[in-house]
Amino acid sequence: MMEAAAEDTDLLGEARRIAAGVDRLFEDALADRCDGRDRLCQAMRHAGIGGGKRLRPLLTVAAARLFGIDEDRALRAGSAIEAIHVYSLIHDDLPCMDDDDLRRGKPTVHKAFDEATAVLAGDCFHALAFELLADDATHEDPFVRSELVVELAKASGIDGMGGGQAMDLAAEGQFLDLPAITRLQQLKTGALIEYAVEAAVIMGRVAEDGRAPYRGYARNVGLAFQIADDLLDHEGDESAAGKKLNKDADAGKATFVSLLGPDRARLQAEMLVTQAIEHLHGHGEEADLLRAIARYAVERDR
Amino acid sequence: MMEAAAEDTDLLGEARRIAAGVDRLFEDALADRCDGRDRLCQAMRHAGIGGGKRLRPLLTVAAARLFGIDEDRALRAGSAIEAIHVYSLIHDDLPCMDDDDLRRGKPTVHKAFDEATAVLAGDCFHALAFELLADDATHEDPFVRSELVVELAKASGIDGMGGGQAMDLAAEGQFLDLPAITRLQQLKTGALIEYAVEAAVIMGRVAEDGRAPYRGYARNVGLAFQIADDLLDHEGDESAAGKKLNKDADAGKATFVSLLGPDRARLQAEMLVTQAIEHLHGHGEEADLLRAIARYAVERDR
Repeated sequence: MMEAAAEDTDLLGEARRIAAGVDRLFEDALADRCDGRDRLCQAMRHAGIGGGKRLRPLLTVAAARLFGIDEDRALRAGSAIEAIHVYSLIHDDLPCMDDDDLRRGKPTVHKAFDEATAVLAGDCFHALAFELLADDATHEDPFVRSELVVELAKASGIDGMGGGQAMDLAAEGQFLDLPAITRLQQLKTGALIEYAVEAAVIMGRVAEDGRAPYRGYARNVGLAFQIADDLLDHEGDESAAGKKLNKDADAGKATFVSLLGPDRARLQAEMLVTQAIEHLHGHGEEADLLRAIARYAVERDR
Repeated sequence: MMEAAAEDTDLLGEARRIAAGVDRLFEDALADRCDGRDRLCQAMRHAGIGGGKRLRPLLTVAAARLFGIDEDRALRAGSAIEAIHVYSLIHDDLPCMDDDDLRRGKPTVHKAFDEATAVLAGDCFHALAFELLADDATHEDPFVRSELVVELAKASGIDGMGGGQAMDLAAEGQFLDLPAITRLQQLKTGALIEYAVEAAVIMGRVAEDGRAPYRGYARNVGLAFQIADDLLDHEGDESAAGKKLNKDADAGKATFVSLLGPDRARLQAEMLVTQAIEHLHGHGEEADLLRAIARYAVERDR
C-alpha cells in the first residue's frame, strides 16, 4: 500500500505494524455483546477493522519517537484518533451527507447494515475515542490525559472537523477561492491530522514555545495530503481507491486541482512536503519515519 | 414545570436556576462563527438552549451538595452530560431513527434545518461534552477529570446509551419481557442518569466501597423516571409534552405500562422512589434536593 515512499525507512513495514496494532485495540473493544447489541458491534467492526491507511495513528507513533515515548502509549492515543476518523467516515457516507455506497473497498455501513445502525455505530466510535484516550490503562500523567482529551474534542468539534464539514455543506453552489478552500480543508481534514502529531507533542511534555515546528510539519503534511487526494481524485480509478472519486468536482465544488490546475497543484504539494521536512531539521534519524510519511503524502498512488 | 413536587425544597426555583446555568454555558460555546459554520451553530442553539427539564445537570448539582462541591464545577460537569443528552435526542429524532417532527415543543433539528445539519449538530454536541468536561477551567484534580471522561464515554457508548439504542432497534417486532425491558432501559436512558449522580460522587472523591448508596439512588430514580414516562405517554397529551407520544406502543413495542398495566406500573414507580430516598438515609437536609427530585420523578405531569 505504501511501497512508493518506502526508500530507506521501512515505511511499509511500520505502517503494517501500526495498522495491526489499531485493529487489535478495536477488536478488544468490539467483541459481540450477544444481547441485541451484536449488530452494532458487527457494524463497528465492519467499519473499523482491517482497512484504511491508518495515517493518523502512524503520525502519532512516528512523532512519539522524537520524544522517546513508549510505542504502546502512542498507539493507544493514535487509535483514539482513528476512532474519531472512522466515526466521521461512517456519518459522512450517510445518504443525507455524501450518500456513498463504497468505502475502503467495502459497502458503507448504511449499505451493509442500515442507516440507524450507521448513525449509532458512528456515535459509539465517537465515545470509544474518548474512552481509549482517557483510560487509566494509558499510564499517562493525568494532566497529559486531560490535555489530550480537550484538544481532541476541539479538533473534532465546531472549531475543527465538525465545523469544516458545516463549511463544506454551506459551500454547495458557492464559489470558494483558494484561501477559503484552504481554510475549509484545514478544519475538515487538517485539524485531526494536526492533532495526531500534537498528541505526541503533548505526551512528550513539549513546552508551548517549542511546539511550532511540529505544528508546522503537521499543517504542511495535512495540506499536502489533501492536495494529493484531489490529484488522485482527478486522475485515479475508483477500484484502486476503494471509494467514489471526483465527488467534489461532480458537485461543482472547487478543489485545489480545479483552482490551481494539476501541474501547479502537484508543485504546491511538493513544496509543502519540503517545508514539512524542513521543520524537522533539529532532529536526526529519530525523525526519519515522519520524513518518510511526508514524502509518502505526495508519492502514494491511493 | 416542576410545581407538583416543590413542597419544602424549592425544586422549581433550583431547576430554573440550573437550567439558566446550562443555557449560559451552551451560549458561550455556541456563538456564531460567521464563516459557513453559522448554520451549524444556529442548529445547535435551536436544539440545546431554552428547553428540556435539565434533569441530568439538576441531579449532578443536587448530588454535589452531599460532598460540599462548588456548584460551578458541578454545573459544568452537568452541562457536559446534558450535551450528551441533547446530541442523543437530535440523532434519535432523525428520519432513519424515530423520525420525529417535534421535540421540546419545537420542530426537530432536521425539520427546522436539514438532516445533514442535524447529524453534524449532534456530533458537535458530542464533542462539546468532552471539551466541557476535561477543560482546565473546571479547576478539577486531573485524576478526577480523567475518571469523569472515561465514565462518561462508557455511559454513552456501546456499554451505555448507544448500546441501549442498538438493543431498542433490535427489539423491533420482538416480544421483550420485564427483565429485558428493564435491562434495555437501564442502558438506553439509565446509564446517563446514573452517570449524572456518579459524576458528583467522582468529584467528591468517594471511595469505591462507599458508592453503593448513590448508585442505588440513581438506578431507582432512573427507572422510576422511565416508568413515569411510559405512564405519561399512556395518559398524556402531546401539546403539553411537546413531543410525539405512544411511539413504542404504536410500534408494537413492550413498555412498562403494557407489561404491568398502569396501576401496577404506578405502584412500581412509587416503590422505586421510596427505595431511592431510603438510600439517602445517611444524609440530612443536604440531600433534600435529591429527595425532591426523586419524588418529582413520579409526581410530574410531563
